Amino acid sequence: MADKPKKPQKLRARLPRGLADRGPAEIAATRAMVEKIREVYERYGFEPVETPAFEYTDALGKFLPDQDRPNEGVFSLQDDDEQWISLRYDLTAPLARYVAENFDALPKPYRSYRFGWVFRNEKPGPGRFRQFMQFDADTVGAPTAAADAEMCMMAADTMEALGIPRGSYVVKVNNRKVLDGVLESIGLGGDENAGRRLTVLRAIDKLDKFSKEEVAKLLGPGRWDGGEEGKGDFTKGAGLGDAEAKLVIEYAESQQLMPLEYVGNEQPGDRGKPMPFVHADGTSAGSYRFNNEKTIESLLEKFGSNSVARQGLNELSNIAELARSAGYTEDQIRIDPSVVRGLEYYTGPVYEVELLLDTKDEKGRSVRFGSVGGGGRYDGLVSRFRGEPVPATGFSIGVSRLQAALTLIGQLGKKPQPGPVVVTVFGGDIAGYQKMVATLRSAGIRAELYLGNPKHSLGQQMKYADKRNSPCAIIQGSDEKAQGIVQIKDLILGAELASLEKDRDEYLKKQAEAQFSCSEDELVAKVQDLLQRRGVNWS
Amino acid sequence: MADKPKKPQKLRARLPRGLADRGPAEIAATRAMVEKIREVYERYGFEPVETPAFEYTDALGKFLPDQDRPNEGVFSLQDDDEQWISLRYDLTAPLARYVAENFDALPKPYRSYRFGWVFRNEKPGPGRFRQFMQFDADTVGAPTAAADAEMCMMAADTMEALGIPRGSYVVKVNNRKVLDGVLESIGLGGDENAGRRLTVLRAIDKLDKFSKEEVAKLLGPGRWDGGEEGKGDFTKGAGLGDAEAKLVIEYAESQQLMPLEYVGNEQPGDRGKPMPFVHADGTSAGSYRFNNEKTIESLLEKFGSNSVARQGLNELSNIAELARSAGYTEDQIRIDPSVVRGLEYYTGPVYEVELLLDTKDEKGRSVRFGSVGGGGRYDGLVSRFRGEPVPATGFSIGVSRLQAALTLIGQLGKKPQPGPVVVTVFGGDIAGYQKMVATLRSAGIRAELYLGNPKHSLGQQMKYADKRNSPCAIIQGSDEKAQGIVQIKDLILGAELASLEKDRDEYLKKQAEAQFSCSEDELVAKVQDLLQRRGVNWS
Repeated sequence: MADKPKKPQKLRARLPRGLADRGPAEIAATRAMVEKIREVYERYGFEPVETPAFEYTDALGKFLPDQDRPNEGVFSLQDDDEQWISLRYDLTAPLARYVAENFDALPKPYRSYRFGWVFRNEKPGPGRFRQFMQFDADTVGAPTAAADAEMCMMAADTMEALGIPRGSYVVKVNNRKVLDGVLESIGLGGDENAGRRLTVLRAIDKLDKFSKEEVAKLLGPGRWDGGEEGKGDFTKGAGLGDAEAKLVIEYAESQQLMPLEYVGNEQPGDRGKPMPFVHADGTSAGSYRFNNEKTIESLLEKFGSNSVARQGLNELSNIAELARSAGYTEDQIRIDPSVVRGLEYYTGPVYEVELLLDTKDEKGRSVRFGSVGGGGRYDGLVSRFRGEPVPATGFSIGVSRLQAALTLIGQLGKKPQPGPVVVTVFGGDIAGYQKMVATLRSAGIRAELYLGNPKHSLGQQMKYADKRNSPCAIIQGSDEKAQGIVQIKDLILGAELASLEKDRDEYLKKQAEAQFSCSEDELVAKVQDLLQRRGVNWS
Repeated sequence: MADKPKKPQKLRARLPRGLADRGPAEIAATRAMVEKIREVYERYGFEPVETPAFEYTDALGKFLPDQDRPNEGVFSLQDDDEQWISLRYDLTAPLARYVAENFDALPKPYRSYRFGWVFRNEKPGPGRFRQFMQFDADTVGAPTAAADAEMCMMAADTMEALGIPRGSYVVKVNNRKVLDGVLESIGLGGDENAGRRLTVLRAIDKLDKFSKEEVAKLLGPGRWDGGEEGKGDFTKGAGLGDAEAKLVIEYAESQQLMPLEYVGNEQPGDRGKPMPFVHADGTSAGSYRFNNEKTIESLLEKFGSNSVARQGLNELSNIAELARSAGYTEDQIRIDPSVVRGLEYYTGPVYEVELLLDTKDEKGRSVRFGSVGGGGRYDGLVSRFRGEPVPATGFSIGVSRLQAALTLIGQLGKKPQPGPVVVTVFGGDIAGYQKMVATLRSAGIRAELYLGNPKHSLGQQMKYADKRNSPCAIIQGSDEKAQGIVQIKDLILGAELASLEKDRDEYLKKQAEAQFSCSEDELVAKVQDLLQRRGVNWS
């Protein structure tokens, strides 16, 4: 064995983890989606602006949720001049840099949108990539909740423009200030506790995954992944005492039950879809509707004594009123205090678009599709560069995730487009075939010469045309050439024919239709007829 | 001074070198361009496929022209698993990886296109960025020159689809094998001389920048940037002896004169635009046309004794014949042995699209715009992964560069699009204004609420609308609100008015037209009228 001559070493063709190639159907779907989103954003008066993939690392800041790995999360490298640069991990931080850099030249408020790839150097998983696409809109220099309200309306309009029916999505709105007020009341106020507040937010965000007891660990001393001390990874806790942790959990739990606990009986008018309410023993307790005003009232009652929380609730009240007066119901835009959003830079209203569609998880269990986008107010992000307050709010769509959802509900085609007309080749006169192709193309018909080995049999060439999903193939042997005619083979009908029951008469009739000849001059017209007959539309 | 309290340190907002932001006009221009290119490529039967920004460093290979800095040129970093990954520096190497990875599932030949950002960690300069966009098409699994010919035709069609007139561009075609043959004849054949051959190619490529003597240094012992030994950077030479260097230069020089030396007198028929030929003393020597067949004939005469060169010339002859029979003239596709292309992976025909437009260099001198794209055959790139021959040819457009050219000749708009209708706000009833905006948007009109500080004066709000290039603004004070009316201010007419000669009657008449009131119910219809009157078309 040792004497066997070594094969020349072959490179392995593979992608690094967490990255993916994209085929024609996926690319077409993204394009269709992005066009629809763009149309909505432009109707709202946003204009496009784009930044490059790299920024100085310090300009990006460290705002990613995964605070336990502050130096990971982003792809960074040291430039020639020894400065660190990083690939953008979202589109918000680069926009803040852009606005700060061009502040005097830009209209204020500055309303812009952009979409593009962002990069996260995180552990990839199912549906979790290290390169993914976001589509953002931001209003910088807008101090009032009207700007936040508009983002929520635009999010709702975008979902409907994409074909997601009302009732299958909801834009949930909360305000960081409400939770900040609650945390202040248990002694977690002030700049010095910013880190712990964030840990609390992230612990609350885990309530849909973990039990109360596990979340309590995250609020308190910390949590071992493996279930007991020393087992698995350790996540540092917020260090709250038992009483405070209990209070936060009660608050968070009350948030989750909010609509049922606080809405009361059915409301008059169009206030969203009635929700059935079922007692613990399974008996019906009538139906309820979400009601933003009532939600805010009850929150004011409970937490309004803290001035920060009260301010946050007043902003939410403004948002709710603006949404209502513009005709949006609670089915579309809903105040929901359980929304947290993981990014550190949010300072006021935060919003999240949730799809209420069911899908399957990795184990085949039915789960809610969940969040496909969100955003919020980030008044401090531009200010970091300017040294003066610059209020801002923005909304970001996770394009890849939303695309998966749209494909799931059949709003984006998965079928490949028809391929080109294939002109097959025989013998040496490639130039004659090439001329046919050029003629077809001049008439706007997608067409190509068979460019594989010209010695390949007609069967091999037809196999190629089938694989390309071609509507028809053009054939001209030496006999046809001498007569100045070509054969047109209808591959769509041909495929039907192959699956046809053996009704001899019909078969023969269709067979005649599936391959026919015409003069070279008629080629374009005959192919155009065939494309129309078979409903081929490439656009 | 030392006691003065420190100002909080402010981050500087700036981009790393060689990167750029893109505004609305540029983004719109790229979009328009990319759509037109896509249309041509799809008519040729290419289908989209995309790869991510990162690849394993070894999969990309080191094919960049700047061989003196083999570890530079690309942005690379070490992944968690210690493997090196790099940002793609072109779209060809990743495609080769993609095809190799999905070989059995893909139709062969495999015809695909893609556009996207590529990254080069090079020294930036004017018009030279570290992130730029390419638009590629490739045919993998096509062994014959018909595939190369098609690329050249597609390049020509693309230029014309983009509005570049015939005669203002040319697709120049050469074959690496011709030069390889010449080099073989002076003892530079074989794998062991691959590096030196490349150095020779790159030296020849410098003939448009450097004098013969300087190029001779690059062919021989090497060249000092500063003009003498020890001054400036040193570029390693190919190490040719004086006689060989002289021969290569003679060959290269003869290439540059080719069209005039070898074409002979004017040809009958449509063979491209006549070229005036002027003797050294300034007297006319009649006019000439490029003629691909004659060019090839004369090259065969001179270098046809070498079998590699002969094979290359036969391929060029095929390409010329296919182009001619499909109706392309030498004005569009021209055999030109001076084309080299710097990338190492080319193995056969190479082509380059040159714009014959004049532009200004950094010093204001008139220069040819030059190359906006190119490509060639790279039979070895997929084979590296497969261990079997996989012939391939591809074409790449430098989108950013071509866009600059199109803007130069006025084929791409530089004018900003009209902005949205701005609804101005007074006092507390934001909800009423928001409703107006929602009504306008529902009618498909781009509109927005003024989202700056609601206490801003009307003047400040109008200034914003002007800066946004808005066609009109909507105004409703408390009086108007009580009457159920709104004011519409025509900002396009308003701007005309401001520059009007002081004809009092006309001024007053226009002034009345430039701001008028209507009932709230009429708002949409009146705004639509105004947009039509002023020719506002957002699409």
